[in-house]
Amino acid sequence: MPLGERNWDKSESRYCGVETEFHDDMPQLLAYNISSGGFDFVVAPLMDPSYRPSLMGKDCGGSGVLPFAGSDLVLSPSQWSSHVVGKVSPWIDLDSEDEILRIDSETTLKQEIAWASHLSLQACLLPAPKGTSCANYARCVNQILLGLNNMKLWLRIPLLKTDDDSIDVNSIHPVDSWELWNSFRMLCEHHSQLSIALDILSSIPSANSLGRWFGESVRAAIMDTDSFLTNARGYPCLSKRHQKLVAGYFNHSVQIVVSGKPIHGLPSGGTDLAADHNDRNFDAVQRHPLRPYLDYIGYLYQKMDPLPEQERFELGYRDFLQSPLQPLMDNLEAQTYETFEKDAVKYIQYQRAICKALQDTVPEEKASTLTIVLMVVGAGRGPLVRASLQAAEETGRKLKIYAVEKNPNAIVTLHSLVKLEGWEDTVTIISSDMRHWDASEKADILVSELLGSFGDNELSPECLDGAQRFLKDDGISIPSSYTSFIQPVTASKLYNDVKSHKDLVHFETAYVVKLHNVARLAASQPVFTFTHPNKSSKGSNQRHKKLRFEIPSDTGSAMVHGFAGYFDATLYKDVHLGIEPSTATPNMFSWFAIFFPLRTPVIVHSGSTLEVHFWRCCSPTKVWYEWCVTSPCPSPIHNSNGRSYWVGL
Amino acid sequence: MPLGERNWDKSESRYCGVETEFHDDMPQLLAYNISSGGFDFVVAPLMDPSYRPSLMGKDCGGSGVLPFAGSDLVLSPSQWSSHVVGKVSPWIDLDSEDEILRIDSETTLKQEIAWASHLSLQACLLPAPKGTSCANYARCVNQILLGLNNMKLWLRIPLLKTDDDSIDVNSIHPVDSWELWNSFRMLCEHHSQLSIALDILSSIPSANSLGRWFGESVRAAIMDTDSFLTNARGYPCLSKRHQKLVAGYFNHSVQIVVSGKPIHGLPSGGTDLAADHNDRNFDAVQRHPLRPYLDYIGYLYQKMDPLPEQERFELGYRDFLQSPLQPLMDNLEAQTYETFEKDAVKYIQYQRAICKALQDTVPEEKASTLTIVLMVVGAGRGPLVRASLQAAEETGRKLKIYAVEKNPNAIVTLHSLVKLEGWEDTVTIISSDMRHWDASEKADILVSELLGSFGDNELSPECLDGAQRFLKDDGISIPSSYTSFIQPVTASKLYNDVKSHKDLVHFETAYVVKLHNVARLAASQPVFTFTHPNKSSKGSNQRHKKLRFEIPSDTGSAMVHGFAGYFDATLYKDVHLGIEPSTATPNMFSWFAIFFPLRTPVIVHSGSTLEVHFWRCCSPTKVWYEWCVTSPCPSPIHNSNGRSYWVGL
Repeated sequence: MPLGERNWDKSESRYCGVETEFHDDMPQLLAYNISSGGFDFVVAPLMDPSYRPSLMGKDCGGSGVLPFAGSDLVLSPSQWSSHVVGKVSPWIDLDSEDEILRIDSETTLKQEIAWASHLSLQACLLPAPKGTSCANYARCVNQILLGLNNMKLWLRIPLLKTDDDSIDVNSIHPVDSWELWNSFRMLCEHHSQLSIALDILSSIPSANSLGRWFGESVRAAIMDTDSFLTNARGYPCLSKRHQKLVAGYFNHSVQIVVSGKPIHGLPSGGTDLAADHNDRNFDAVQRHPLRPYLDYIGYLYQKMDPLPEQERFELGYRDFLQSPLQPLMDNLEAQTYETFEKDAVKYIQYQRAICKALQDTVPEEKASTLTIVLMVVGAGRGPLVRASLQAAEETGRKLKIYAVEKNPNAIVTLHSLVKLEGWEDTVTIISSDMRHWDASEKADILVSELLGSFGDNELSPECLDGAQRFLKDDGISIPSSYTSFIQPVTASKLYNDVKSHKDLVHFETAYVVKLHNVARLAASQPVFTFTHPNKSSKGSNQRHKKLRFEIPSDTGSAMVHGFAGYFDATLYKDVHLGIEPSTATPNMFSWFAIFFPLRTPVIVHSGSTLEVHFWRCCSPTKVWYEWCVTSPCPSPIHNSNGRSYWVGL
Repeated sequence: MPLGERNWDKSESRYCGVETEFHDDMPQLLAYNISSGGFDFVVAPLMDPSYRPSLMGKDCGGSGVLPFAGSDLVLSPSQWSSHVVGKVSPWIDLDSEDEILRIDSETTLKQEIAWASHLSLQACLLPAPKGTSCANYARCVNQILLGLNNMKLWLRIPLLKTDDDSIDVNSIHPVDSWELWNSFRMLCEHHSQLSIALDILSSIPSANSLGRWFGESVRAAIMDTDSFLTNARGYPCLSKRHQKLVAGYFNHSVQIVVSGKPIHGLPSGGTDLAADHNDRNFDAVQRHPLRPYLDYIGYLYQKMDPLPEQERFELGYRDFLQSPLQPLMDNLEAQTYETFEKDAVKYIQYQRAICKALQDTVPEEKASTLTIVLMVVGAGRGPLVRASLQAAEETGRKLKIYAVEKNPNAIVTLHSLVKLEGWEDTVTIISSDMRHWDASEKADILVSELLGSFGDNELSPECLDGAQRFLKDDGISIPSSYTSFIQPVTASKLYNDVKSHKDLVHFETAYVVKLHNVARLAASQPVFTFTHPNKSSKGSNQRHKKLRFEIPSDTGSAMVHGFAGYFDATLYKDVHLGIEPSTATPNMFSWFAIFFPLRTPVIVHSGSTLEVHFWRCCSPTKVWYEWCVTSPCPSPIHNSNGRSYWVGL
């Protein structure tokens, strides 16, 4: 049964497994561990551990029956697939110097995976590579992956990284198990069915180092009983750092698997039971010796803070790639307006900014005599018109509003809104593209919300450059400026989703995405800034920026699958609005991040620098980005000439 | 006119160019340098060097006429394309800190290339990047390349590499211009129309470092007059090392371009002419001031050793990828037999080996009484039968020969050969696959030639394992063993040819190829060895080999596009035969090398190690290789499960 009641949590992490020894009676193994023990699934060997292909006499009966744990008929298909993760024989070593062991290992691995596939198991656990060299193991697993059904392979990897400053003098190189994983998955070409089961040890690496794994395909965290402490009452518990780590796993769909002998908390049965738990004397009436560990994991699961409502609403969007809107080329649909208009926080910020701008435009003493001309350019269905009127009311300023909108469908709504609210005397509706409207008077204040997740990516600069003709020389633009930001991320799920299209176009496209299973490898840095009104004579909106990211040295090496992009906009003076993580406006949901993929992920080694170039290019008909990495190793220029992804003018 | 008479040489390197200053009268420039001066082409600026887009008054006439050197009509289309390489304005600097210069540079570059395309020039020379950063220059060139006609772009790169042990204490990093080229071409994604023009300076780097460039796309070597010495008679000449380098360029289709002011050899006109040569006072009667340099280059060209006949025959095969034969699955055609039977050297080696084996099998004193049973397996149209009979005659041994051949078409030829030569008493023809023939007696000697360029790649091991059933226990196999070898190579031409297919299959296929424009980066190392007869009980022909190549540190960094493969076979005792470069059998032409490409070329940095794995995998129906790189950075496993390339059993 799941760890607890969090009914919005549909992720795998509400299930907890247990690693078991080989048992040839699978139904009894399930009865003991699941029906009675309370675990959700077992990670169990499928093959007698004493089996070696080379020891099978070639003519000993010739029955060809391999020593598997029971036949496929001992459990129902759904029991096999829901409750059993196959554990591949841990003795296999495909990179051994011993040729017989190597060949036995390859044979056994292929036999066990074939059997597990036959049973339609959801996953098999592969033992960790024995040494630092894993090429032959990876070659064999890669062959298997290419012919595999839907089954996942979880490669067991100890969660281990020695700090550079605590290197054992006897070991030549610092150990970082991520490197081993990385070699293995690169050899297997980032195969989407190859995942990780992390072995959690009693000591865990630095937070930065742990963070890397949240962008990798980790499916399970195996908690050895050794990694638990003992509380005052003799029960198992975890250190604060381990607790935080487990909470992170719950939050990232990583399943916990309890493993090892019970060495804490002996509430019933005493030491005898503990000593006996590997025997075949499964007494369903007795309490499962690992139950205290499961109970503690369940306790941690249930004590987690509930997810905020907004986050729950966005669960379905996590790590789901969406094409950015093209609101200039396309007309938005009613549903899209509906969604964005609900973002109260955004309009509160606009109203604050407009209030300040109104007060600065007309001093208090002239408030009743002067009328301020305010134009909402890109008025949509009217939320910024409303915010402007509320700001006028709040500050006691007199307003004349022009609501300029190019979408004829939104104009219909605007008209009925004005009529409904009785705004006819104040609001004039203009059905026109702001770049072409011939205004009859000039504005004191230009209010717009044309921002994309990357700031300028919905062509706010080009639209506002066109609109500033009808802004007075001392007029105010809200927003007055905006800046895009990027940061390098590990995002294996997004990478594989992009790769699954098997074309260049998808690797050279930016996506809007609610980033979740992602590791942010360095603080974000500003890319392009646009200021309005734009007084520069050059007036080019082309940009080029070179950025250098330093990955913290305690992170270790990491894989960069692409860049997360954000924006921050200054609406007016100190009123800002944005999604850049360190300054993001709380509880605003109009924008997810943007993701720029890399065609070939780049490994950045511990303490080294990632140098990146971003360009914003413009032609008479379109705007696009190009990007590349120049260090540690040059990548191709992505999206040259906007061949794959562009925004139409 | 070409540099000299080597009528087999159809390569570009028989032409010599000259770099000129800007001149607005192109016909006069050609008359002076080509008709009169003797050069084959000019590398000439197309645009007035004082032009800057930002200095053009926006309304100064508005004629829009750019200051190009004449209109397209001043030369015929064929004159433009045969005699003019466009030289892009050298002042451009797309990575300058100065934004105006940067924008002017981009505009000018695009205008000049557009003009050169309009003229259908064969190539344009791009100035060398100004600093170590070239991302914006590369981004712009990449945009141009993606829309370019057939014109080539030659990026000018100084041939410069400081030795690690002679680093100027003031410079932080050693300089290696290859790194600059490498960044540029990686950013441009190895575009096949982007090539190199090397600037040859008075001092040149080590031989290993120079060697790298022979695998790169070098189209021209620009020899500055500064790089020449003065001989006893006051004429220009080159140092021995420069001479050797130029000979290398002649041999690799690299065109020489003479550049600079005349500073040696003033046979006519004296210093005045030299001082004036940049003036517009082109007097066609006067000798061209750079003529002595051209004459010296022509002298070097003509004094080169003529190419051996075999090499001339193979000129058309240089760097041309061929699929390996599948002689087991397919039957060879008459033309193929015809070609290979002409390889006298190969059969002489076989005859020598057979002689020794005959003498060892039957001592001299029993030569007249004992008959040796010799089987030629894979007899084809009979050349090894003939070699065996000649060996018998030479050694005075008595032979009974079985000629086993699976190709029914070759059997026809064999029968007529035996009849024609009157060998009926000695030779028995068996029309059968050697793996299935039920022999009536056992052989003393088994002779075969089933070797591919990579030794075992035409399945000699599988065939001979099948045939050894009818070899006596103390019988001899000729060959007695063979070993494959590989070495890492730079081979940009081959890489681009593979890439042009735009699929995975071609990147996971091995090709037979006459390697020429290739840099061999490290000595070759043995991969797989097979010994016959094969007495091991395991009898598996699967293999796995890990190899570590150290690139000599004075090479500098280099690009590995794949691996050149060879074989060496021990026919019998000290008689060997093979194509491994350090031990290759001279004047044998039956085998070119084999080439295993890498899907993504790997950069190996100076002094670091390249670790490579090769597997030979076998299934009941096919044999295939898999390969990967594991260091400096893991590649995908190539050709997993033989999905792209395999040899049928």
